[in-house]
Amino acid sequence: MLKIITGGITAPQGFKAAGVKAGLKKSGKLDLAVLYSTVPASVAAVFTTNTMAAAPVLVSRPVANKGIASAVVVNSGCANACTGPQGLTDAKAMAHMTAELLGIADDEVLVSSTGIIGVPLQMDKITAGIETAVAELDEKGHENATLAIMTTDTFTKSCAYEFELGGKVVRIAGIAKGSGMIHPNMATMLCFIHTDAKVAPAILKAALTEAVNVSFNMISVDGDSSTNDMTSVMANGLAGNKEIETKDCPEYKVLTAALTEVCIYLAKQVVHDGEGATKFLEITVQGAKSNTDARKAVMAIAKSPLVKTAFFGEDANWGRILCAVGYSEAAADPEKVSLRIGDVTIVEKGMGIAFDDKALKNIMAEQDITVTVDLGLGTDKATMWTCDFSYEYVKINGEYHT
Amino acid sequence: MLKIITGGITAPQGFKAAGVKAGLKKSGKLDLAVLYSTVPASVAAVFTTNTMAAAPVLVSRPVANKGIASAVVVNSGCANACTGPQGLTDAKAMAHMTAELLGIADDEVLVSSTGIIGVPLQMDKITAGIETAVAELDEKGHENATLAIMTTDTFTKSCAYEFELGGKVVRIAGIAKGSGMIHPNMATMLCFIHTDAKVAPAILKAALTEAVNVSFNMISVDGDSSTNDMTSVMANGLAGNKEIETKDCPEYKVLTAALTEVCIYLAKQVVHDGEGATKFLEITVQGAKSNTDARKAVMAIAKSPLVKTAFFGEDANWGRILCAVGYSEAAADPEKVSLRIGDVTIVEKGMGIAFDDKALKNIMAEQDITVTVDLGLGTDKATMWTCDFSYEYVKINGEYHT
Repeated sequence: MLKIITGGITAPQGFKAAGVKAGLKKSGKLDLAVLYSTVPASVAAVFTTNTMAAAPVLVSRPVANKGIASAVVVNSGCANACTGPQGLTDAKAMAHMTAELLGIADDEVLVSSTGIIGVPLQMDKITAGIETAVAELDEKGHENATLAIMTTDTFTKSCAYEFELGGKVVRIAGIAKGSGMIHPNMATMLCFIHTDAKVAPAILKAALTEAVNVSFNMISVDGDSSTNDMTSVMANGLAGNKEIETKDCPEYKVLTAALTEVCIYLAKQVVHDGEGATKFLEITVQGAKSNTDARKAVMAIAKSPLVKTAFFGEDANWGRILCAVGYSEAAADPEKVSLRIGDVTIVEKGMGIAFDDKALKNIMAEQDITVTVDLGLGTDKATMWTCDFSYEYVKINGEYHT
Repeated sequence: MLKIITGGITAPQGFKAAGVKAGLKKSGKLDLAVLYSTVPASVAAVFTTNTMAAAPVLVSRPVANKGIASAVVVNSGCANACTGPQGLTDAKAMAHMTAELLGIADDEVLVSSTGIIGVPLQMDKITAGIETAVAELDEKGHENATLAIMTTDTFTKSCAYEFELGGKVVRIAGIAKGSGMIHPNMATMLCFIHTDAKVAPAILKAALTEAVNVSFNMISVDGDSSTNDMTSVMANGLAGNKEIETKDCPEYKVLTAALTEVCIYLAKQVVHDGEGATKFLEITVQGAKSNTDARKAVMAIAKSPLVKTAFFGEDANWGRILCAVGYSEAAADPEKVSLRIGDVTIVEKGMGIAFDDKALKNIMAEQDITVTVDLGLGTDKATMWTCDFSYEYVKINGEYHT
């Protein structure tokens, strides 16, 4: 029911964006973006649970909790993480400058940063960058904004959809940056979503949480979660639908489905752009006793370096997959588990079975591979997306010198 | 107080060993060992917690729980894992054959296997191998036994010590096999310890558990734990010390310290032989609120692929280390954490500080590197040993085809 549309992050009504060169990136590429809703919007966000959360996360959390915002200011090239009290002052200053130029309150601005950690922001460049970006805010500014949040991403990640909500045409769009771990010192995943749907903040938060749980929380490039990770959504209500104020209505389900679609699309794009990745793996654990078990098992598989190197080597090393299930702490019975790669079943009741060797070889040679483990104990399932570990992964992450 | 002695696993009184070529390894190398105590011994063992535990683990668990054993039969070249009911029958047959030839009961024999998974044991070869091994049991047979348990290990792992216990001279010795993950489909860590100390089974189990918790449970090559992992100790009492029957005596502490020394030595050897490893890392988290927190934090660091590739690249990428602490779920305060590599402090109060760049560079170029994180919150600490992730790791684990 979702219709793909053009226009990126500025496709929903009443949103503007800009991306500029503030000079934070040595490469001289775009590195500062402002996203803006011309009317106050409901806002919801989920942040990294890392106890070393960066200063911008500390500044944005109370804004998201309050539930109303109009702008996001985000820079790449410097994560403003592990920067102590000065970092916090700088993040607050970013919000303040943006707010002042837009004529809104400081606590209506989300702040986000990605890039090298342990290094303070160059505030003179940030200041000039914010001024330029606000001046350049445009209803067609989505491309520059999308470029400005990238670090080592090799392609932009963006999507926009139109759908019907309570009889009105509504738009939703998102941009993301991915798993670049070179130029900064670690991965940072950022995602910003805009919609012109009208939704109460608490309900928007519930929908976002549902969407993130089956998307960004289900991807793994290297198992590390960063100090700066953040996903936010602004919903400005300009589509004119009746405000969604409860989870107990069909509109909530429709909105959540659309939000989930955006998040899954962008999450997959992030994995596709995983550093040094040569394979894209969609791993499903089904037949689990509980959803928790399904998630535990699928995460253990997706994070196993042995599994990831095996796929790089195009080796259907099923022992490693079962082994990961075994130490995942999910309820599992060796005599009930089965395993399928693509459409070829290779394990039944915990034992390897005869299979079409050539068919499997062809599947393993593909770039996109599905792995399905059935625990045979229940009806719950979970899907995770990951990539392989390649020489290139080691090269990128080992040869970069801080 | 421990004195290094020669004689390996057969150095303690009353122990014999043999290692033979049963023909399970394609290479034609030694692949079956029998370890034997000429008198019944107290036995204790810890096994993998993997729910996909291999057949030999299922057979050995009740033997260890019973607390008395005289022999271990172990083969390499085939893990007898994911082999269903036939696997269990075969593992039991291994115990039975060994017992019959030695004139002991079936339930006095521990069974252990390592090697390729999902493939049944070639029982004709196993049978002939056990016959030869039992016939060759010898008080000087330690070297062949040590060789026979190896898979992709590049060197043997063995140690033997003498110490005083309750006025008597006691010997303790151990052998281990390591983190070879190629030829089988996953890592298996096996360790067999002999001592002529006299210890009640329950007390031996307590001492082994303490020792394993700070040794084998604190090493990580790739974070995966296998279907076949096992560490056992037989204590036959021939040293003539007064039996240790309680944890509340000085002798318990002396024995536990010796057992811990054996386990830490062998655990470090396993890491040194980690596949493709170029660096040996000793990581300590101190100043933690609790031991649980210290262990969580140190494990997160030691298992992080980003940290491991950084050390391969000789890059003191401290952001990745703090990031791992941050997502470890250990209590941590960014404003209190400090970090030292070797003797160079590079982070204080969560922020990078000026340091001697050349000194750090020299430390990072070493093969053995210590990393110390101080959480600044308490007095608990934990140490873990791990290795780096190299091209060779990806090559070994990716290019091997099942």
